[in-house]
Amino acid sequence: MKKSLILMLLGICAACGAHGQPAEVIKLNPPNLQRGEVTMQAFEQRRSTREFADRKLAPQDLSDLMWAANGMNRPDESKHTSPTARNRQQIMLYVVMAEGAYFYDSKAHELHLVTTDDLRSYVAGPQAFAATAPVSIVIVADMEKAGGNDERARIWSGMDAGIVSQSISLFCSGCGFATVPRALMDHENLHKGLKLGEHHIIYLNHPVGYFK
Amino acid sequence: MKKSLILMLLGICAACGAHGQPAEVIKLNPPNLQRGEVTMQAFEQRRSTREFADRKLAPQDLSDLMWAANGMNRPDESKHTSPTARNRQQIMLYVVMAEGAYFYDSKAHELHLVTTDDLRSYVAGPQAFAATAPVSIVIVADMEKAGGNDERARIWSGMDAGIVSQSISLFCSGCGFATVPRALMDHENLHKGLKLGEHHIIYLNHPVGYFK
Repeated sequence: MKKSLILMLLGICAACGAHGQPAEVIKLNPPNLQRGEVTMQAFEQRRSTREFADRKLAPQDLSDLMWAANGMNRPDESKHTSPTARNRQQIMLYVVMAEGAYFYDSKAHELHLVTTDDLRSYVAGPQAFAATAPVSIVIVADMEKAGGNDERARIWSGMDAGIVSQSISLFCSGCGFATVPRALMDHENLHKGLKLGEHHIIYLNHPVGYFK
Repeated sequence: MKKSLILMLLGICAACGAHGQPAEVIKLNPPNLQRGEVTMQAFEQRRSTREFADRKLAPQDLSDLMWAANGMNRPDESKHTSPTARNRQQIMLYVVMAEGAYFYDSKAHELHLVTTDDLRSYVAGPQAFAATAPVSIVIVADMEKAGGNDERARIWSGMDAGIVSQSISLFCSGCGFATVPRALMDHENLHKGLKLGEHHIIYLNHPVGYFK
């Protein structure tokens, strides 16, 4: 009787994560390093796609996407797939989904819940198509880590944001996902929704999904 | 007699291109689209390398490098491996080598001679290692094409420059070349040496070579 109660409660908790309250932490899978077309095919297939299938990303796909975008490929040195100028590591990634928005912790390779609000319309701004993707990655720079917030620092962080953007694009083209880099969005509401501070700048967003 | 004279002259011309005066135009080979590790290995292998073998790049390697960096993967639409914001296509690539510097014409997939001066020390600036690479790609934005030259346009072009930078990094990591993205250089002399105008901004450079 006691055992079956525990099993029932465990069942409810698992269901919470899947269908009810979003999980506080989503532990991502280790990357599948044998995945994708040969390198030059990733370049051959690179293009912007603005239509997405109405289907959530599978856990392994989300895991591989985040790792390729800005995961640690040399954890012993805390170094990433996407470099930053002077190794400032000021680029932060957020994952916006219907059930809420998460911060990507590259060291733990985990997503941490920031809000249960659906921020997809803020990501989309005036372009409704962008809200139809199951996932949007938002690329942010922490200007406190960037070592200043003058124009030069903002341009350097822009370059670093572009670097992550192309990591996302080439992961998608090499592994069969649809995406487009976008600078358009409702900056003010997205900034508030992601609980960012004055020292944070949102540079780009990338809706990602399966091809329609 | 006449035929052997023509053959001799052709021989001299070929030699000019190879050993004497640098060729005005270097026609690049079509990209080898079957080349490289699987996509996720390109991310796994991505790192900054600051040592290069003392060896020129083979013609196919230079051809594939330039095409991956910013070649046309959809020539019918004039679209590139590396996207630009609003498809302004304001990013220009220069190839700096011992024998001179070339502009990359992505439409023709050719290099056009800009100067026979060796600009490698200007690319290197205070970091001498960078002048030891057989090739450095210099990433420039044409702000007339960018639709303005205010801070916002300069940041957007910075993002687009970063996108090309990561194309170079991931081509190199996926196909076995050494590179590092660099913002450091002798901007003033490199700007003059490449015969750039006031509306051009140099963002980044990428020494590329074989691993030592």
